[in-house]
Amino acid sequence: MENFKDNRFDDLQTPCLILDEARMQRNISRLRDRAQGLGVVLRPHLKTAKSVDVARQLLEGGNGPATVSTLREAEIFAEAGVHDILYAVGIAPGKLGRVADIRAGGCDLTVILDSPEQAQAIAEFTASTGQVIPAMIEIDSDGHRGGLLPDDAALIKVAQVLADAGGAFRGVLTHAGESYGAPGRAAQAEFAEKERAAVVQAAANLARAGLDCSVVSVGSTPTAHAAENLEGVSELRAGVFTFFDLVMAGIGVCDVDDIALSVLTTVIGHQREKGWILVDAGWMAMSRDRGTANQAVDQGYGLICGEDGKVLPDLVLSAANQEHGTITVRAGSGGKLPDLPVGTRLRVLPNHACATGAQHSRYNVVPAQAGQPLMQWERFSGW
Amino acid sequence: MENFKDNRFDDLQTPCLILDEARMQRNISRLRDRAQGLGVVLRPHLKTAKSVDVARQLLEGGNGPATVSTLREAEIFAEAGVHDILYAVGIAPGKLGRVADIRAGGCDLTVILDSPEQAQAIAEFTASTGQVIPAMIEIDSDGHRGGLLPDDAALIKVAQVLADAGGAFRGVLTHAGESYGAPGRAAQAEFAEKERAAVVQAAANLARAGLDCSVVSVGSTPTAHAAENLEGVSELRAGVFTFFDLVMAGIGVCDVDDIALSVLTTVIGHQREKGWILVDAGWMAMSRDRGTANQAVDQGYGLICGEDGKVLPDLVLSAANQEHGTITVRAGSGGKLPDLPVGTRLRVLPNHACATGAQHSRYNVVPAQAGQPLMQWERFSGW
Repeated sequence: MENFKDNRFDDLQTPCLILDEARMQRNISRLRDRAQGLGVVLRPHLKTAKSVDVARQLLEGGNGPATVSTLREAEIFAEAGVHDILYAVGIAPGKLGRVADIRAGGCDLTVILDSPEQAQAIAEFTASTGQVIPAMIEIDSDGHRGGLLPDDAALIKVAQVLADAGGAFRGVLTHAGESYGAPGRAAQAEFAEKERAAVVQAAANLARAGLDCSVVSVGSTPTAHAAENLEGVSELRAGVFTFFDLVMAGIGVCDVDDIALSVLTTVIGHQREKGWILVDAGWMAMSRDRGTANQAVDQGYGLICGEDGKVLPDLVLSAANQEHGTITVRAGSGGKLPDLPVGTRLRVLPNHACATGAQHSRYNVVPAQAGQPLMQWERFSGW
Repeated sequence: MENFKDNRFDDLQTPCLILDEARMQRNISRLRDRAQGLGVVLRPHLKTAKSVDVARQLLEGGNGPATVSTLREAEIFAEAGVHDILYAVGIAPGKLGRVADIRAGGCDLTVILDSPEQAQAIAEFTASTGQVIPAMIEIDSDGHRGGLLPDDAALIKVAQVLADAGGAFRGVLTHAGESYGAPGRAAQAEFAEKERAAVVQAAANLARAGLDCSVVSVGSTPTAHAAENLEGVSELRAGVFTFFDLVMAGIGVCDVDDIALSVLTTVIGHQREKGWILVDAGWMAMSRDRGTANQAVDQGYGLICGEDGKVLPDLVLSAANQEHGTITVRAGSGGKLPDLPVGTRLRVLPNHACATGAQHSRYNVVPAQAGQPLMQWERFSGW
């Protein structure tokens, strides 16, 4: 990327999103190799990329198992030929019609839930329409969000309601969202083991009740990269590993040089006495995500690179308005503000790839293969 | 809105954006009346709404003076017939070609700047293309962001370069961004006077040098609503007043009942022992904006209402993941978590209308006129 030169790149209007394909491919290979070594299926989460072009590279065979966070993602990826999708947000009864439509189109879409009410809604839907909706039960492994504890009596009840609804029970899954706040591989490996232990215990409790899990699923980017043993687990989910970001670098899951996503911006002014450089990437281009605010190193709204993608040490996007960003020297770093005249182009590495990506409708892709021109990949949003 | 019933509303898939047209119209009238009373032209900022349908109601005559934050806004609104637009983000030299194209289409588009380099870039553009680009000089009235101080010697220099470039000098403008952090009308009125004093002084300094300002422009939503005297000012800019939000309510510029924008969401789960209700509006639907975090009352990611838009006291969206929100009772309020079963629909009032709006591609509009059906207005994004 550093030596990439292309007229189309020079002509890009700022702010815009840049994707380094070589870094993305390296990130994908890294987790693919891990999953293979651990003996589990990799089911990448497409909520980070929301792009058919990225999915083609990310999924096994280009259309293999995937995870999504919205039914819009499910609809678009199913249309693009992805045939096995897990919609990993607790199902609302009012969404079952759309789920059934996607399934009728030939995609094996699975939903998740954690309550008897939701299981009952599926049973009623199946009874009235004849359409089976496979579901997984969410297990709470770290107190982060939803899910049943493995020993909760409701677990058997929910699975039984599903099993009675024409075989809608598919298995259990968990996600240790708290692992994003766990710096260092050892702490992340502990969360990975919490994930594994929780779903394996849940599956054992279900098996004792005669309810076998065909899928036992875990994952988050930190735990996926730290797990040492996934015995009893059948599949691994993760999303942000595709691009990585400063939050992931901040807890040691990747290096800053692994971050494949950045925002191209232009210097539009200065307040020299205050040590401010103003650029045209504000929070609309970066998102309001301040995920590094509570990490050891606060990266503001992003870390500054030259147009070539090389980090400019100690410069951060320390403040953001809607369409203005303020670059300053990181407090206490002793760095010096470089002379960057109006018109200078820079790149900003994001705190959170999912959030920054969502502010844009297109990836401008610097190709992995040398000598190839800039590519443009569409990105979608919505529900 | 409270008694609105419509099948199309019942069929909306969540999360999605709801706009209360009656509240919006009330908000527009309020500032329009103020501007008239103060004897200034109102130049609404369209960055909040990013919708041609909203612009038609917001602008004088449906296509009158407007402010924008991106050239994409300028292009779309010019195409829709808006004939006088101020692009109020410091101009990057690489954007002058697009500006000239919009002007060539018949829209009087003006840019802003605060440096001799930018003025020189315009002069060179005009010299090489013959196309004049009118520009205003940004004045710093509160230390918030960009702009020259009224007594900065560069002010005359910049205006002279513009004036020499075939009459590109149009006037001065300022924006007291710090006023968003000023609770109470008295403090906001002080910022309004800072804005007025700064541009009036700058205009006087320029006039003494033989450089007359045809436009003297101020504004922000808090100062526009608090200004007591705008002598010497010709126009007033503001954006978020169109919809209002919890940040504006938190500093007393509006009441919670004035907020015209909300996100419709569905209950998807519970962690009853923790006092959590989980909904399908996470930060992707609300944005990551936490603008009330430093106000007297922290509203989390938003304040909870019933499906009918009535506030449910003491309930806030206290945490958000990408597609999950967690509703809890506001800490210390003594409130009690109501029983809201899976499938219950709620609305969330946003911290920041500009940021929440930007996460959506459509307004679902509850019409001001009784008996009319739900409307859908497109919303755009990008640069």
